[in-house]
Amino acid sequence: MFEIVHVSGTARAGKLYTKHGKVETPCFMPVATKGSVKTLSSQEVADLGVQAIISNAFILFLRPGVEVIEKAGGIHEFMNWNRTIFTDSGGFQMLKKDFLLGVNRKGVVFRSPFDNTKHLFTPEMCMEIQSSLKSDVAMVLDDCPPFTKEFSYINESLIRTIEWAKRSITLRSNGQLVFGIIQGGTYPDLRRKAVEELVIMDFDGYGIGGLSLGEPKEVMLDILEYTCRLIPEEKPRYLMGVGSPLELLESISSGIDIFDSAFPTRNARHNTVYTWKGKYNITRGKFSEDFSPLEEGCSCFTCKNYSRAYIHHLMKVYETLGMRLITIHNLYFLQQLMKEARQAIIEDRFNDFKSEFQRYQ
Amino acid sequence: MFEIVHVSGTARAGKLYTKHGKVETPCFMPVATKGSVKTLSSQEVADLGVQAIISNAFILFLRPGVEVIEKAGGIHEFMNWNRTIFTDSGGFQMLKKDFLLGVNRKGVVFRSPFDNTKHLFTPEMCMEIQSSLKSDVAMVLDDCPPFTKEFSYINESLIRTIEWAKRSITLRSNGQLVFGIIQGGTYPDLRRKAVEELVIMDFDGYGIGGLSLGEPKEVMLDILEYTCRLIPEEKPRYLMGVGSPLELLESISSGIDIFDSAFPTRNARHNTVYTWKGKYNITRGKFSEDFSPLEEGCSCFTCKNYSRAYIHHLMKVYETLGMRLITIHNLYFLQQLMKEARQAIIEDRFNDFKSEFQRYQ
Repeated sequence: MFEIVHVSGTARAGKLYTKHGKVETPCFMPVATKGSVKTLSSQEVADLGVQAIISNAFILFLRPGVEVIEKAGGIHEFMNWNRTIFTDSGGFQMLKKDFLLGVNRKGVVFRSPFDNTKHLFTPEMCMEIQSSLKSDVAMVLDDCPPFTKEFSYINESLIRTIEWAKRSITLRSNGQLVFGIIQGGTYPDLRRKAVEELVIMDFDGYGIGGLSLGEPKEVMLDILEYTCRLIPEEKPRYLMGVGSPLELLESISSGIDIFDSAFPTRNARHNTVYTWKGKYNITRGKFSEDFSPLEEGCSCFTCKNYSRAYIHHLMKVYETLGMRLITIHNLYFLQQLMKEARQAIIEDRFNDFKSEFQRYQ
Repeated sequence: MFEIVHVSGTARAGKLYTKHGKVETPCFMPVATKGSVKTLSSQEVADLGVQAIISNAFILFLRPGVEVIEKAGGIHEFMNWNRTIFTDSGGFQMLKKDFLLGVNRKGVVFRSPFDNTKHLFTPEMCMEIQSSLKSDVAMVLDDCPPFTKEFSYINESLIRTIEWAKRSITLRSNGQLVFGIIQGGTYPDLRRKAVEELVIMDFDGYGIGGLSLGEPKEVMLDILEYTCRLIPEEKPRYLMGVGSPLELLESISSGIDIFDSAFPTRNARHNTVYTWKGKYNITRGKFSEDFSPLEEGCSCFTCKNYSRAYIHHLMKVYETLGMRLITIHNLYFLQQLMKEARQAIIEDRFNDFKSEFQRYQ
């Protein structure tokens, strides 16, 4: 299910096998929360070389509803994507998106943004939904507390997350991989407890949640490194919701295999272009007559066909094609970054690769 | 420059040759007012079989500015489209878009929507701009009055349009075709006067403006038929801003060769799907679990890859991919409609073709 191809320091190159094929790691998953990677067709995402995307069980449960996707034959058929799909549980979204009414042992009480009705979302429902969606990898429902809370609050939340994980793992459906989620905020003791408890349940992989929520970067990296060391080496490690190109490389150093983040696509829609030499805002005046591509030497569809000046213009006049062209470039850039990071690990020169990259960021 | 391949009744199949190749007529041009067919890349537009698009001199003059496009090497290079580009003068936009401060003999006085400054836009500027943009076909600046105005008002406006046309034709630049625009509202006498005066100036083709602005449909079709009969047969006739699939066929009957309209793309962004059996709104509840394509038997990218249920979902949750998928389908449909209309003309069975189509609309 997960094969480690090479380890260099604590960085790993691997292969995750799912019902829909192979995912080479380290890998970055574009986010398709509502069943589409924003602005892109599934063919365009495939053309970027993307092997896995992540959608969201809770969001799809709200719209279009699980029944629709079930009738379509599953999430792959619904969105016409035949490679790997992870589904996040939605615990994170419930916290962030003002859906939340409360959390108790049973599950999460939330208000539907569509009809304002009150619902209970339980770990069991969450597994059932993901089984119906037929995603390749299901994430268990977790309780993701704000990092600013004190030890006792995070501890109680963690106890809940662990209990939910226990109730979830027994509902594993045929052929679907299930990942547990490690919480515990910025407290090493709680992270240790989380890993110990979840490892007993023998998940197919481990998500690390509750990081990159605003805590200082050194704290994040310390906790990450500490947590990674505790997870059995043979299991894939997925750092949820991270992040910037540099954070990806730093986390790979600590032993992370899988990432997702809405930032590269959201930033694209807000004019930010990623490159090997740092990022920039395409609407800046100096690009209005710059007829070079978004990044010199880049082989993405956007860079092969359009100029900065054209994309600058599109973004200035709010043509959605502009957002799409930057999204394509940013995702292609991250795919290339992961590919080259993987090669560097295999050739035992990852640290040099990272330092070189860091110099320009 | 324009070759008539076959005439059937008053319907014509032809070929227009421009600097960027051949345009088979009857033809429908998607609108790229700001330099992009909304939601689509130029490759996608080409993949639909589109041979000509229309952009807008006035809008591009405002943003990104003529200098930028000149430095890019012209509008084709700027937007990476190597087939025919018409540029409309912008007379119509100035009227519709609240830019207008006034019209006098010199030209149109307008307020820039970007910095609120006051400008004069003259027929001479309009030709110069289009020469700099290097479009294949330039439209002269016209004064497009509301159809509700009385004879004397329309007459005065027409006198202005004719004078502007005279000032424009002398500024024809090398290799660019220039079309005059026939105004005259719903008054046959004024339409006749417009044609007579413009024909003396010997334009490469004739746009018919000031129709489909809200006047009754029979009035529109009567005026159109009347006007078409007056235009020399060997010149291409372009009905500006029309329209619905049925209006296209009715106008082809009268002898129109070229069309443009923002409706098929704008309607797509507002959920309306065109088909051979009429149009429908994809957000209607009955499509939520309909896994057939937008139109059974359609060979467009959208219909080959996605279901109504998926596109219904995308539109319900405001994912821009949905708008793009419907835009692709609607434009493909119109390309097919024009192709089949052309074949029907060539085979002298256009009236049957039109009646058959009409039955389902």
